[in-house]
Amino acid sequence: MDLHILDHRLRVTSISKNGLVHFTHPLIKLIFLRNRTRCKFFSLTETPENYTVVLDQEGFKELQPSEHLKVEGSTWLPLNVVSNGNASCSSQAVGVTKIAKSVIAPLAQQHVSVFMLSTYQTDFILVRESDLTVVISTLEEEFSIFKEVGGESVPVHSQDVSDGLQKNGREAIQPTVHPVLIPQNQFCVMSLDPATLPSIATTLIDVLFYSNSPKEEEESPSSQVIKFFSFSLIDGYISLVMDAQAQRRFPADLLFTSSSGELWRMVRIGGQPLGFDECGIVAQISQPLAESDISAYYISTFSFDHALVPEEDIVSVTDMLQDQRKEPASS
Amino acid sequence: MDLHILDHRLRVTSISKNGLVHFTHPLIKLIFLRNRTRCKFFSLTETPENYTVVLDQEGFKELQPSEHLKVEGSTWLPLNVVSNGNASCSSQAVGVTKIAKSVIAPLAQQHVSVFMLSTYQTDFILVRESDLTVVISTLEEEFSIFKEVGGESVPVHSQDVSDGLQKNGREAIQPTVHPVLIPQNQFCVMSLDPATLPSIATTLIDVLFYSNSPKEEEESPSSQVIKFFSFSLIDGYISLVMDAQAQRRFPADLLFTSSSGELWRMVRIGGQPLGFDECGIVAQISQPLAESDISAYYISTFSFDHALVPEEDIVSVTDMLQDQRKEPASS
Repeated sequence: MDLHILDHRLRVTSISKNGLVHFTHPLIKLIFLRNRTRCKFFSLTETPENYTVVLDQEGFKELQPSEHLKVEGSTWLPLNVVSNGNASCSSQAVGVTKIAKSVIAPLAQQHVSVFMLSTYQTDFILVRESDLTVVISTLEEEFSIFKEVGGESVPVHSQDVSDGLQKNGREAIQPTVHPVLIPQNQFCVMSLDPATLPSIATTLIDVLFYSNSPKEEEESPSSQVIKFFSFSLIDGYISLVMDAQAQRRFPADLLFTSSSGELWRMVRIGGQPLGFDECGIVAQISQPLAESDISAYYISTFSFDHALVPEEDIVSVTDMLQDQRKEPASS
Repeated sequence: MDLHILDHRLRVTSISKNGLVHFTHPLIKLIFLRNRTRCKFFSLTETPENYTVVLDQEGFKELQPSEHLKVEGSTWLPLNVVSNGNASCSSQAVGVTKIAKSVIAPLAQQHVSVFMLSTYQTDFILVRESDLTVVISTLEEEFSIFKEVGGESVPVHSQDVSDGLQKNGREAIQPTVHPVLIPQNQFCVMSLDPATLPSIATTLIDVLFYSNSPKEEEESPSSQVIKFFSFSLIDGYISLVMDAQAQRRFPADLLFTSSSGELWRMVRIGGQPLGFDECGIVAQISQPLAESDISAYYISTFSFDHALVPEEDIVSVTDMLQDQRKEPASS
């Protein structure tokens, strides 16, 4: 398989719930007015805590410094695994499950933090630019690695980027096993023809920017469901992750899923905000899923991580994670 | 004819050009998300100086106090002239011309300040709530006056609202003749089915909130044209006033004018900001227009007044206004 280091230099930021009103202007520009910005990588995810915004340097310029904006200090690069036809991968699963053993586990072992962003189209593995040397030397046995530069894919090898020294050490990891929360909402992972984005603009604006008004809170008083909505516009492709309740607000003929009516359940990882330095969090959940060949989307946010698994698998995933907590690390 | 005092209590505000980004969130709510607000009277007009926002108390609550927001101190009430069938008005002209002699001139004579807001559908004459007694006693000879209360039209007479005393005196006025500016743009006055507002949302948002970005400035470098765009959503009716260049950005099949291709030229009144206390400004321009039976829309803003006259009449209107400057007041 091929691993592509994409030509985007990303910042990971969060906007506080109260601060969203102050960022409505730049965010609407980034979402709807592509001619007004050079941003090519934009992702916005609402969780109960905040809004996580991942975007390239061009997009980041649109966000004015503010007490409501937190910015992770590093530059992150998105990696993307591309099956090149002759892949011997026997798994039928999609999402992080497919890359759990080949990418997630080796990077965790090398103490490389990853920030995952699954979309309808693909799974982006974000790594710190400063970890790139370690990433390349760790993954080049398994992958042909290419760096995208101005639309061209250029092969890279670890000797190209450094003396091959692995900074992060190789000792076996004993990852913390974080508590998980399994809310009751059903989620959909959808896409949309960018040409039809204007048609859903007012609904999308309503859901993204006005969903915390009293009206909405009355509608979903249950604490068993979680507020989670993710929109991304990356290299011209749109991806949306929302729960079934939000989906009903959109015209049914414009949003599409890969297979009609496909519903997902969420596993939210972390009892306390996870931070950006701990490694192996994605591995904690993607490894057992890979062993059972269960598909999963995975969306990291500023505070917590979120895996989405097929609704029919949620019981076995729940059992699996409970077993993991009983026998942590050594199992 | 009937004069209706509409059931809206209005505030007249202005947002600075730089301050618009801070008001994007409430303004988008007021324009596009009618279910989220109880505002029934909303008007936003961009001029080169600022954005004038006229809105009812429910809408006003959405605007947070800010250094970028100026609020005129009074509560204003919108008046509306309704032809009740047996009107003996011989004029074919529309807009303020029709009410110049019956409303504008008598109010000016009574030193009542008016703030005009013409829309595609009608012309609103805003008067201060504190002037209502004078307004009623001044206009009740000419009009049957009704106050709209909770959807009902209730007849009012001056003895209902006060002891009939006219506060503002009756001496003849000698209005200041303000300089006028006649920019080169051609304007359209249009409407839109509210159900199709979502279809133009991204374009309208782009024009309203992002039109000051460098891209736009390159497109219209001429100082002969004026930036002027007005949107109103009043009792469910939408009215748009924009120049022909802005109009080309909207889908041609959704916006409609009363007669296809009708174009208007602007007469902008005031070399210095006019303020809110001077009377007779609307009269200065509407009187000569009425004498020549020339139609005119009239839009007051926080700093200046704007009349729109049919393109074919702009030469005679220009001559008329030049004569007025040569022989001020005494003529």
